[in-house]
Amino acid sequence: MRTIDWRGDHIELIDQTRLPGELVTLRIDTVDALVDAITRLAVRGAPALGVAGALGVALAARSGDTEQAARQAETLRTARPTAVNLAWGVDRARARLGEGPDAVLAEALDILDADVRVNRAVGSRGARWLLDALGRPVNVQTHCNAGALACVEWGTALGVVRALHRDGALGHVYLNETRPLLQGARLTAWELAQAGIAHTLVVDSAGPSVVARGMVNAVIVGADRVAANRDVINKVGTYPLALAAARAGIPFVVAAPESTIDPDTPDGSAVTIEVRDPAEMLGTHTPPDTAALNLAFDVTPADLVTAIVTEDRVLTAR
Amino acid sequence: MRTIDWRGDHIELIDQTRLPGELVTLRIDTVDALVDAITRLAVRGAPALGVAGALGVALAARSGDTEQAARQAETLRTARPTAVNLAWGVDRARARLGEGPDAVLAEALDILDADVRVNRAVGSRGARWLLDALGRPVNVQTHCNAGALACVEWGTALGVVRALHRDGALGHVYLNETRPLLQGARLTAWELAQAGIAHTLVVDSAGPSVVARGMVNAVIVGADRVAANRDVINKVGTYPLALAAARAGIPFVVAAPESTIDPDTPDGSAVTIEVRDPAEMLGTHTPPDTAALNLAFDVTPADLVTAIVTEDRVLTAR
Repeated sequence: MRTIDWRGDHIELIDQTRLPGELVTLRIDTVDALVDAITRLAVRGAPALGVAGALGVALAARSGDTEQAARQAETLRTARPTAVNLAWGVDRARARLGEGPDAVLAEALDILDADVRVNRAVGSRGARWLLDALGRPVNVQTHCNAGALACVEWGTALGVVRALHRDGALGHVYLNETRPLLQGARLTAWELAQAGIAHTLVVDSAGPSVVARGMVNAVIVGADRVAANRDVINKVGTYPLALAAARAGIPFVVAAPESTIDPDTPDGSAVTIEVRDPAEMLGTHTPPDTAALNLAFDVTPADLVTAIVTEDRVLTAR
Repeated sequence: MRTIDWRGDHIELIDQTRLPGELVTLRIDTVDALVDAITRLAVRGAPALGVAGALGVALAARSGDTEQAARQAETLRTARPTAVNLAWGVDRARARLGEGPDAVLAEALDILDADVRVNRAVGSRGARWLLDALGRPVNVQTHCNAGALACVEWGTALGVVRALHRDGALGHVYLNETRPLLQGARLTAWELAQAGIAHTLVVDSAGPSVVARGMVNAVIVGADRVAANRDVINKVGTYPLALAAARAGIPFVVAAPESTIDPDTPDGSAVTIEVRDPAEMLGTHTPPDTAALNLAFDVTPADLVTAIVTEDRVLTAR
């Protein structure tokens, strides 16, 4: 089952807010519904957002009103600010608007199909690189969800994990909860259980301890954007793992498609870090009127990144 | 109001599991009830545990059965393994068992009174050191709760914060949620609100970003144990903040009473890190049968610690 797919005249996607309790799909018929799904993280993950952006423009193009479709594409493009893939997917599909709905859809489906191939390539390349560097078994710490649910299928960071598992080279996976929305505890735990991969959940702040205690020999994460200088922007909590990996002298590996690398972003300081609704962090456990800053992403400086694995290459530290 | 106190023939303590929703006190008449309160974190924090340990032996001594009291003291001593203060408080009171209940109680009350004085001294010394190092305003990142609720009153790390606030030298406080039991979001947020100190909550994994983004110029935490080599054992999530502070070149300051320094612990690797019930991390948000490792503390290597502030001195990096 794919995380996101095209069904003749609409988008179908897994509602990730319902996992792991229920595996429910959403039928998306309009750009407004898609923007809503993106905003509330029913669909999330940089590669999946690229596909969603392109399919959304294909939906918009079906009306035949090119000007309206272009306006809708712009709204869609900015539904979330940090991952470059959403804008990239929208832009690729939007460039075909003048050629009519079928051309736009063909472009979007091309992005969707490519994501599947790209993920497999990232996974195999990353697994090979880790095996060359570390031998077996590879024990991994990861964060958030850079799995099938962040893509069309297979996954980027979890694609590497799946490839290691397939090749009998995987030891154990430690995963962070990923507050406040718990994508690790909810989604990565679910994916790994489905795949029969042995894993243990830790609180986010224990991830660096897992690294320091020698319980893993690599950290593998995805990315929402890679800047031209190779700073990596990913889910908040990535940076502490990179610091811990550097101190422990183990590889910190970023697995992401080439489309995540943005030559127009000079470095991490140029990226808009999404600040989400503080309500995601507040509840009966916090005093009334508590102020919260809900930073969704962080910046890992390039010098802490051992390798960036894409479908085409491995960029190692310079 | 004190976090823990002696009321003629029993211990009274604030039930911290009920905050911030309700301010409820517990009447503790037996060592069993005290062990239960310690285990479920109704009372927690290294200095408060030292006082609780001593008062618990005073409770036990009231029966007049010295042998039974000694056995109960041993149970109490190991209710939680990581903070040295609990064992220290038990041992100090237990040493007086041969002199009768009144002598034990006098020793326990001496520890209780000393904690108040010690906290004030730690706070003032820490504030002075930070002002000398940084000028004003001092903007602080903290973790967990090293406040009045971790002590009898005033606090260690938050004692420094309170002293800075009293002296008009405090800017803003950022505090981590502190999963899984959310002592930051529940207790520190409550204490700071009560004290009228401006503060903002972040998820644990965003703390290092707050440091990296220059939003604070110091990290201040408490400690459950300081080893002879000055490795610091504190609530899990302390180590990532120390890594971030070192990278950012800002002081990482530990505020703790001298009783937290344990000359019998050569370094962090010699400390038993408490592993708590995985159930604290699991729920409807996790798939059935998810394995979780609930590490309660971490080790910050001495070279990352800029200063350890006690009631008597400031130990700076060697």
